[in-house]
Amino acid sequence: MNLGFIGLGLMGRPMALNLARAGHALRLWARRPESLAPFAGLRSVTVHDSPAAVARASDLVITIVADAPDVRQVTLGPAGIAEGGRAGLTVVDMSTIPPGAAREIGGALAALGIDFLDAPVSGGEKGAIAATLTVMAGGTASAFARAEPVLRCLGRSVTHVGACGAGQVAKACNQIITGVTVAAVAEAFNLARASGVDPARVRQALLGGSAASSILENHGLRMLERDFQPGFKAWMHQKDLRIVMEEAHRLGLLSPTAAAAAQMFNGLVGCGEGESDSVAVLKLLERLSGHDA
Amino acid sequence: MNLGFIGLGLMGRPMALNLARAGHALRLWARRPESLAPFAGLRSVTVHDSPAAVARASDLVITIVADAPDVRQVTLGPAGIAEGGRAGLTVVDMSTIPPGAAREIGGALAALGIDFLDAPVSGGEKGAIAATLTVMAGGTASAFARAEPVLRCLGRSVTHVGACGAGQVAKACNQIITGVTVAAVAEAFNLARASGVDPARVRQALLGGSAASSILENHGLRMLERDFQPGFKAWMHQKDLRIVMEEAHRLGLLSPTAAAAAQMFNGLVGCGEGESDSVAVLKLLERLSGHDA
Repeated sequence: MNLGFIGLGLMGRPMALNLARAGHALRLWARRPESLAPFAGLRSVTVHDSPAAVARASDLVITIVADAPDVRQVTLGPAGIAEGGRAGLTVVDMSTIPPGAAREIGGALAALGIDFLDAPVSGGEKGAIAATLTVMAGGTASAFARAEPVLRCLGRSVTHVGACGAGQVAKACNQIITGVTVAAVAEAFNLARASGVDPARVRQALLGGSAASSILENHGLRMLERDFQPGFKAWMHQKDLRIVMEEAHRLGLLSPTAAAAAQMFNGLVGCGEGESDSVAVLKLLERLSGHDA
Repeated sequence: MNLGFIGLGLMGRPMALNLARAGHALRLWARRPESLAPFAGLRSVTVHDSPAAVARASDLVITIVADAPDVRQVTLGPAGIAEGGRAGLTVVDMSTIPPGAAREIGGALAALGIDFLDAPVSGGEKGAIAATLTVMAGGTASAFARAEPVLRCLGRSVTHVGACGAGQVAKACNQIITGVTVAAVAEAFNLARASGVDPARVRQALLGGSAASSILENHGLRMLERDFQPGFKAWMHQKDLRIVMEEAHRLGLLSPTAAAAAQMFNGLVGCGEGESDSVAVLKLLERLSGHDA
């Protein structure tokens, strides 16, 4: 299959490399030429001079960029995918954007006969490199069927959640649970240490019971090792919780623990830790509790 | 070993039955005679007329009662364990109480030569029946060594976390993480449903990734099945988060997601759902968001 891929950032670069390794012909465009360097010399890769040109040469185009304005730009903007794509093209946006933006972009592409799937991912850079991402897809059953074999080259868990926008809703749910749990684990470790109890022993004891989670196991370990390298950057989690809070506002939903976590990530970014992993929320708690390491 | 057991409630009854089945001679006292009914006819069981009498006949006494005043009453009160216990007795309190209360009671018993272990549990009534509880113990290494074989009849995961009080600190950490995660999962499901997306599909998609947890799997399923039977009662989680907030206040710790969850459980109990399982927090969110089932 001729695969277009737009967005060669922290996540997109290893994902595109995994697709090239799986034998797909890749059609690339990049805003910054240096993003293309890791692909130099790969025979299956062709570089194009616009998203429109990528779309013209592809059966399916994947986009993974920072936020909704970027997705709008590469799909519906000048020399965007909509300009080059013929009817029958499938566009899979794997960025994390508001569900409403996904529905709006999907609707505009559908009017041109272009199928759209919102398929955001969870699992961070590590998951992108290891092709163990969690993919949450929204769109028609036929678009999902076309995209699924490609998505399975990128992720271990690929789920068709529902109609257009449902992938972004699932991602928002994911970011509530992960963001809140990261904060809760940090609060627990901060309490343990301030009480003179070893947080590593607490983690070990709790992993055997109903507090057990992927976050306690993996993010919890990184907190104990004081490893604040991303992973998943705090400013990205802040952005994702902004989407959650906007949806909660729009729909009139009470969401107190998500709101508390969103405030924590605001503070974390405000303290200059935006480029750190979201587990740096522990540092913020320690600083604000007078227990700096 | 002659085992005393005091506190034959929702948790204590099945735990004591598991100890009897494991072949231990049980010395019981109960405030209410009807609590003793399930033990009638068991040859290994002897009923005594006070905690002091239980202590006199035992090598190790387990207590599991509602709150700190109850533990104080049966250990240090009139006709309490301290009155009957000789030096060398080990007392294991499996109630969930503030770490400071555990340290105070442990100190008072130590002055009499009685060893004390705080060993609260997680896993609910189901874990008590199946002997799959998580036990978090604080106390001396020698007290833990004496108690460990008995605790292993009750739980699957038994950890010596640290000195006296450390078990209660670990339990407070456990209750932060479980209470906050239950609230976060409920907030996620409430967002999904209000967005027209099936929460069951969201749960399925998320279980494959970094949002995966015992709470999402088990409590999440009960939310989807609208099964609000305890399990673990909302008023008990409210009490445990009160302990957390008191510790956070005493130690000067920022703990925003725990505070948000504590408020949710306050509201849940205020709405008359105190006897429901803590997963009923979903009902509260739905009611307050105008999306009642």
